[in-house]
Amino acid sequence: MKNYLKHDEWSIIEEGFTPEYNRISESIFSIGNGRFGQRANFEEHYSGDTLPGNYLAGIYYPDKTRVGWWKNGYPEYFAKVLNAANWIGIHVEFDGEALDLAKCEVETFRRELDMKAGVLRRSFIARLKSGRRVQVVSERFCSIAQDEVAALRYAITPLDFEGTLSLTPYIDFDVINEDSNYDEKFWVEVDKKVKRRQGYVLAETKKTAFQACTGMKFGITQNGKEADFNAYRMQREKYVGCTVDLECREGETTVVDKIVAQVTSLNYPKEDLMEECRRAVKAAFKQGFDALIAEQAAAWGRKWEEADIQIEGDVAAQQGIRFNIFQLYQTYTGEDERLNIGPKGFTGEKYGGSTYWDTEAYCLPFYLSTADEHVGRNLLVYRYKHLERAIENAGKLGFTGGAALYPMVTMNGEECHNEWEITFEEIHRNGAIAYAIYDYIRYTGDEGYLAEYGLEVLVGIARFWAQRAHFSKRRGQYVMHGVTGPNEYENNVNNNWYTNYIAKWCLSYAAQAVAYVEQSDPERYAALEEKMKFYRNTEMGQWKEIAENMYLPQDDELGILVQHDGFLDKELLTVDDLRPEDRPINQNWSWDRILRSVFIKQADVLQGLYFFEEDFDDDTLRRNFDFYEPRTVHESSLSPCVHAILAAKLGREEKAYEMYLRTARLDLDDYNNDTEDGCHITSMAGTWMAFVKGFGGLRVRDGHLQISPFLPAKWQSYAFKIRFRGYYLEVRAGNGKAALLNHSGAPITINLYGGPQEIPAQGKVEVPLQHQ
Amino acid sequence: MKNYLKHDEWSIIEEGFTPEYNRISESIFSIGNGRFGQRANFEEHYSGDTLPGNYLAGIYYPDKTRVGWWKNGYPEYFAKVLNAANWIGIHVEFDGEALDLAKCEVETFRRELDMKAGVLRRSFIARLKSGRRVQVVSERFCSIAQDEVAALRYAITPLDFEGTLSLTPYIDFDVINEDSNYDEKFWVEVDKKVKRRQGYVLAETKKTAFQACTGMKFGITQNGKEADFNAYRMQREKYVGCTVDLECREGETTVVDKIVAQVTSLNYPKEDLMEECRRAVKAAFKQGFDALIAEQAAAWGRKWEEADIQIEGDVAAQQGIRFNIFQLYQTYTGEDERLNIGPKGFTGEKYGGSTYWDTEAYCLPFYLSTADEHVGRNLLVYRYKHLERAIENAGKLGFTGGAALYPMVTMNGEECHNEWEITFEEIHRNGAIAYAIYDYIRYTGDEGYLAEYGLEVLVGIARFWAQRAHFSKRRGQYVMHGVTGPNEYENNVNNNWYTNYIAKWCLSYAAQAVAYVEQSDPERYAALEEKMKFYRNTEMGQWKEIAENMYLPQDDELGILVQHDGFLDKELLTVDDLRPEDRPINQNWSWDRILRSVFIKQADVLQGLYFFEEDFDDDTLRRNFDFYEPRTVHESSLSPCVHAILAAKLGREEKAYEMYLRTARLDLDDYNNDTEDGCHITSMAGTWMAFVKGFGGLRVRDGHLQISPFLPAKWQSYAFKIRFRGYYLEVRAGNGKAALLNHSGAPITINLYGGPQEIPAQGKVEVPLQHQ
Repeated sequence: MKNYLKHDEWSIIEEGFTPEYNRISESIFSIGNGRFGQRANFEEHYSGDTLPGNYLAGIYYPDKTRVGWWKNGYPEYFAKVLNAANWIGIHVEFDGEALDLAKCEVETFRRELDMKAGVLRRSFIARLKSGRRVQVVSERFCSIAQDEVAALRYAITPLDFEGTLSLTPYIDFDVINEDSNYDEKFWVEVDKKVKRRQGYVLAETKKTAFQACTGMKFGITQNGKEADFNAYRMQREKYVGCTVDLECREGETTVVDKIVAQVTSLNYPKEDLMEECRRAVKAAFKQGFDALIAEQAAAWGRKWEEADIQIEGDVAAQQGIRFNIFQLYQTYTGEDERLNIGPKGFTGEKYGGSTYWDTEAYCLPFYLSTADEHVGRNLLVYRYKHLERAIENAGKLGFTGGAALYPMVTMNGEECHNEWEITFEEIHRNGAIAYAIYDYIRYTGDEGYLAEYGLEVLVGIARFWAQRAHFSKRRGQYVMHGVTGPNEYENNVNNNWYTNYIAKWCLSYAAQAVAYVEQSDPERYAALEEKMKFYRNTEMGQWKEIAENMYLPQDDELGILVQHDGFLDKELLTVDDLRPEDRPINQNWSWDRILRSVFIKQADVLQGLYFFEEDFDDDTLRRNFDFYEPRTVHESSLSPCVHAILAAKLGREEKAYEMYLRTARLDLDDYNNDTEDGCHITSMAGTWMAFVKGFGGLRVRDGHLQISPFLPAKWQSYAFKIRFRGYYLEVRAGNGKAALLNHSGAPITINLYGGPQEIPAQGKVEVPLQHQ
Repeated sequence: MKNYLKHDEWSIIEEGFTPEYNRISESIFSIGNGRFGQRANFEEHYSGDTLPGNYLAGIYYPDKTRVGWWKNGYPEYFAKVLNAANWIGIHVEFDGEALDLAKCEVETFRRELDMKAGVLRRSFIARLKSGRRVQVVSERFCSIAQDEVAALRYAITPLDFEGTLSLTPYIDFDVINEDSNYDEKFWVEVDKKVKRRQGYVLAETKKTAFQACTGMKFGITQNGKEADFNAYRMQREKYVGCTVDLECREGETTVVDKIVAQVTSLNYPKEDLMEECRRAVKAAFKQGFDALIAEQAAAWGRKWEEADIQIEGDVAAQQGIRFNIFQLYQTYTGEDERLNIGPKGFTGEKYGGSTYWDTEAYCLPFYLSTADEHVGRNLLVYRYKHLERAIENAGKLGFTGGAALYPMVTMNGEECHNEWEITFEEIHRNGAIAYAIYDYIRYTGDEGYLAEYGLEVLVGIARFWAQRAHFSKRRGQYVMHGVTGPNEYENNVNNNWYTNYIAKWCLSYAAQAVAYVEQSDPERYAALEEKMKFYRNTEMGQWKEIAENMYLPQDDELGILVQHDGFLDKELLTVDDLRPEDRPINQNWSWDRILRSVFIKQADVLQGLYFFEEDFDDDTLRRNFDFYEPRTVHESSLSPCVHAILAAKLGREEKAYEMYLRTARLDLDDYNNDTEDGCHITSMAGTWMAFVKGFGGLRVRDGHLQISPFLPAKWQSYAFKIRFRGYYLEVRAGNGKAALLNHSGAPITINLYGGPQEIPAQGKVEVPLQHQ
């Protein structure tokens, strides 16, 4: 846990340079536009500790799997987020002395992520080894208005010397992934071009043969006047740069505007990439930095107008929620159904693959409520397009007949994970993918999705569960052995309640979906039946048999659902029994000790009570919450949000607030001591859920919105907006009142604090604020 | 399963060259002398598929651990058996054309491992690309009479040409380990010398700084006459060789005698190694090849005289048992307590580390019965010397107060394994180490061992179990969660019966040992109590409490001990339900499928019934055998032997014979399709156990030997010898009689078929042969 960033409503601000926090700041100050993004590395050379990171959405590399001991079923390759071209680079020298903050005395240093405008700024005054003092001010952004474009402005002022300033703006594809398994480089040069003030590198990934072209054009002003310069063209393997020598004087500022474009073979024919890149660079350069940055601020303004959450009375909380929303929209805009939301977004390279069940369980609700319907739909279609791979993946584990097991982590539908206890056993992920279909339809009412895409996915998943469960003679019920539940601090357990429950639910839901499509679109159904080789009666009979006889461990004495068969034999300590030096246990305890302990990483039974809340009464929820939450260490970034929602539901407002704060500022405060690897992007959607579902009480039941806002005691007010089936609504809480504003052209009836309430078009309803 | 080797009573013979079996043959035809050993690579260059392997006992390299996902508690380094100098090499050219069987037409080929004499022979006639036909006959051995010495004779006869024969005998330390994690080379040259007919390389291992010097001296004869020759001295990094050009003629034989010595810093000061090596080479060369090979045959003759097992009427079985005994004595002679019995001996590099619980559970009985008592004792002292490391190892997992967890695999006492489900969970190994102390004392009567070494080990182990078990309120007993039993096809199970039972046993045995030493040697006890900071009453009270209240799963309906908590919920198939294409399941099924299946890799509950047979009646054994054996796939080399012994005990003679054959010819027939990696050395001791304990019925009870021989129906007779507390006895079965011969100078009373029987000094007793 760290606390070195300034609290501010709209910006993240670091003052003073602390090299040992540099990687953390590089993560937190990351910028992106859904199409590409990058860590907050420095423009000038930095020889200190840094994780250079530039990422292009959807461009990955299947690194050869590295394991200690091979297990049958492991994937041979492991798709990795790929470090791409460094486009920010400007090498700076004064009379041959390189500017490098690791070798300077840094007198002042400020880094600011201006979330309102979507701009990263940095400024510093440094004293070089030679004694020269220099001031630098830089700003840059990845344009969300033009998602192939980025721009940076870099201003250098000698404070007490004159001499030759040598500048080399460059594009460098000669990069590595720090987590490369075999120290390979993944990019091969295809082509490059360099002119006096422009440079382009076209490179291709090994194996996957993706191509990307990154190019730049730059201009220089001195004291506000365009500088005239000659440039030495620099070329190396996968690198182009232009070295410009200028005279600089004390107090006079030299400014480089570097305009960049990046295009990939995901969007253009390979043979056109160089030209498309030049076209984009040229057009953007013509617009100029000032116009581009104004456009960027305007575009972010529109986003904030729609998706902002305002909190009065708590700057830290306000900053936290905005940071979460900002990072989510930097990572995924929902415009391209081939893309998804990586756990680190564009903020780090850790974790191969990009898509976890986080997308379905945590991110989908955020995009459903804050973006157009097609965004949520695209997230679902992404999985539909991976169905064949999921069937292959199940086949590798011995499943047959169209059974689908979606991978734990993926880029292209193939499994990208290789720990047997996760890859093969954490199969509840399949349930989340089915649940997302249900959740999407529940929110949007788009039942047509089933016939179009959903049914095939649901049948594949149901087939998997039907084969994965087996009948235990001893129990007289269906059981599921050898699974890892959401609590990854236990592996290879039998009858994880959550997994069994969601499997049972999937079997029933798939059967309902079959019946629905059969009835609503018999023709389509007939075609699908044939396509899937679906033995309707036999298969559905089996699903019913298993769903009705699924073993679900519970303990009558404690009145709880039991996490798995062996759980209650554990030593039933609570988190209060831990010594401070034991926390986090995943950094202080050996793995076997963690496994044997009662301590829970993230919601497990409670995840089920969250997903399926309508199936359980509040007493059940309370007993389980009171049993499991005190044993939960919340060492997954995905844990606090679910607990916040459930605590809110139980009227535990303080607990809800505690959990909320923990998720909202997880990265800003480096709560789990791992932000240096990148930010926890998917859990940011959990933060949003904790707010809107927890404090706002948002639900959809029978096609109607439910809202039951409460206001945490420490806040004066809050406000958030949501989209729902074409409506655009705002919820405000404060001054003892809960207000609902309908910004739409039609009236809507919602359920407020349990009762129906009509809100007129463009109208507002205000009621006294209640506690949960 | 393969069947390409000739059945022969004393030799392993391969006729005809099959390149795809070369690695398998290289393993099987391995030679060694306990101090060093090697795979049966070719002397001349071979560009085909080969695993070059030369190994020096006790010389290892701590390779940096490679894992996919790091788990807290993993060791950072992983000691590996190290490939050492190639000392057999002789590069052969005819007029510049290299002899390389991969590039020849091999007309005849014969490889023979003469186990009686301890010599590897090879002969072939090959037609080179140029059409030249040449005959080569080679023989070589690692001297067991002088364990620093090896020798080879290599005879070349041109069959249809004359020309220049160029020979380069060499020593090459520039070798790799095929399983190096990061493709490093592990040896660094320290010094080298080369003369006209001698060469020496002194090299040091990285990190561990072991030094080894390997040297050679050679002579050449042509047509039986000593050849006069000049040699070009060849030197490269870590390599010396002497190139000799000779004229050769059709039908005339050129013979190279290459005499080699290897010395290491385990036995000499580093600064003396080069000189010691030269001294050894010089002395051996003076003796000459013929004298050395005669000495070798004589030494093996003495070994066979003592340790041979003879079988009449079944050449395959005879060859199998001799192969097992031969490999065991090549691997470990018991003279150096720093050494141990690696799972692959000197036959391959697979598996880091060298010592598994195999040593205690499988190898110790062999050495107890066939070697001097100090050999078994040395195997125990080896673990005593690693006690501090075992305590450190337990400390890494969070255990305190002198609790010791011996590593799963080790070279120097440190853990060399990194799969959490094994490294952290397969803790029953600790039990085997305690059991070996019990077994050694039971066999030898050497109770003084407890005070000298044994007690400290037992207390460390008992302390571990006392912390590892925890009290389950629900069960009202002590339980043990998260273990892997001997059946490695299940991981992270709760209450593995075998582990719980051996833990309970260890706690009781340690308490007995404390009481014994306290009473028999109070002074030593007091010193140990202080040294161990042993809180006698508290700790022993706790041991008693746990031992008396250990939960041991059993099922009254089936009348069996239950492998672990979840076992009976599995689908209770038997091996008969498997399709042939499923076998072996470890090569055909995904890991999760194996884990969820009922199929057992090796004896688990039955291992306990073998170790603790006195605690269980025959009915219990029968019910458990009948339940578990049909579910056992025997995919561990250590499985069949235990089953053979138990089957014999139950009078299931055919089953015992089936299991025996499977263990005896495991490598010769490449039963598990993995002999190419090396032979299964430790399971070879299991073969011996299966014979002597199974067919011979050998036991020790209350200080007395029990023998109950039966003769498998297919055999005419068998005979084996054993040592027991200074006695030297022989057991013969055949012609309807069981005979016991006492080759010792004093009479002995043994229990034969359940009744006492005195056998006079140098006398014999014969009784009718019984069935079990």
